Amino acid sequence: MRRFKLIIEYEGTAYHGWQVQPNLVTIQGVLQAALARIAGSPVQVTGAGRTDAGVHALGQVASFAADLRLDPLTLRKALNAHLPRDIVVCAVEEAPPGFDARRSARSKTYRYTLLRRDCPSAWHARHSLYVPQALHLEAMRQAARALIGTHDFSAFRAGTCAAATPVRTVLNAAWREAGDLLHFEITANAFLQHMVRIVVGTLLEVGRGARLAADLDRILASRERRCAGKTAPPHGLCLVEVHY
Amino acid sequence: MRRFKLIIEYEGTAYHGWQVQPNLVTIQGVLQAALARIAGSPVQVTGAGRTDAGVHALGQVASFAADLRLDPLTLRKALNAHLPRDIVVCAVEEAPPGFDARRSARSKTYRYTLLRRDCPSAWHARHSLYVPQALHLEAMRQAARALIGTHDFSAFRAGTCAAATPVRTVLNAAWREAGDLLHFEITANAFLQHMVRIVVGTLLEVGRGARLAADLDRILASRERRCAGKTAPPHGLCLVEVHY
Repeated sequence: MRRFKLIIEYEGTAYHGWQVQPNLVTIQGVLQAALARIAGSPVQVTGAGRTDAGVHALGQVASFAADLRLDPLTLRKALNAHLPRDIVVCAVEEAPPGFDARRSARSKTYRYTLLRRDCPSAWHARHSLYVPQALHLEAMRQAARALIGTHDFSAFRAGTCAAATPVRTVLNAAWREAGDLLHFEITANAFLQHMVRIVVGTLLEVGRGARLAADLDRILASRERRCAGKTAPPHGLCLVEVHY
Repeated sequence: MRRFKLIIEYEGTAYHGWQVQPNLVTIQGVLQAALARIAGSPVQVTGAGRTDAGVHALGQVASFAADLRLDPLTLRKALNAHLPRDIVVCAVEEAPPGFDARRSARSKTYRYTLLRRDCPSAWHARHSLYVPQALHLEAMRQAARALIGTHDFSAFRAGTCAAATPVRTVLNAAWREAGDLLHFEITANAFLQHMVRIVVGTLLEVGRGARLAADLDRILASRERRCAGKTAPPHGLCLVEVHY
């Protein structure tokens, strides 16, 4: 058996998220089906991030073991020939025996994109959250800085989150302007379920003046989901990179 | 009756082009249906460019006359509330009596986008043509320059084109690099049917070395469609701006 590492780009709009679920079309399911056709037998894939339904990826990483004779470039070509056009394998590498896309990851970077203008956008609709209100960017930047470091993120965790511990280390969290678009980029050693979306929902409330940037410390300390803001919708979110 | 000018953005993937056709979903049809619901009676809209099926727009312009009492901002809001999210009215203005989005236009700018990398992109799939081969950009630039000026563009015109004359004035035609993406921007007083797509298909053949940049003059002079290259697919094309 050889071990492989894949770097995958996808447009999550049409999918019920990464993880295989009965009777639903998922990225992992479609990828495993393509691999099974190539390998001639079932292949179990592990993804670095279990992205939610509607969330995108530019740099999802997946690993698997299979008895394949193809070289990495040929395997990439075969996979892309079997995948729909909204899922693309950008790179295939042979990985060392112990490599696991999820457990070997040192950190991951997610990006959440807002569209700020006076009307929605047909062009950016699938990849950004339209925010018609004026936003106080400086307050959102200050609030983002409060997240950096090692904290108990229980307040920013879905009720259904199954992680063993709510403690995570945020290495970076910052807003970046790009024309009409406003990107929030956050890097952490790992993420809790819905963590980025709850963080963004909370920072949006700060941006709209419904909360103060200084409240972030209090929200973290509360460890109560109800103290944080609403969960931002999935389509603005993208898994940008996994670091090993 | 008041006259209105609309600036419209759309993602053409789901539509059979701009122009109303029986039993097909088109941008004009969806827009007219939304306007009719707001006006309470049928409204006939004129578009500046009759974009093909699958072609996008960031700045399509449409005009119409209607007996509406709404101010422009309220009309914009009402229209966007009635439109699907892949069609957005970005601006509504009241226009002078003689204004016609098509006949009043002085020129239009289209953009065609190529994706150059070693694998396709899920993210850019709807808005760009994936070109895996290396392209000779300098030759493509030289070939583009040959189009500038007033020429008989019969060689770059679909067989079904109904325009009275094949003579058009290209004001600008240039390639611009943006990371993995390569944009072709062309501005002309008006365009023939499929003109940009045939031009791009021909320039791609120059980029791949199948034709010489110097052939463009010969192709123009031939006035024969069969002397030009293949029609590039629609999804890389976008109507960027209409100039008045």
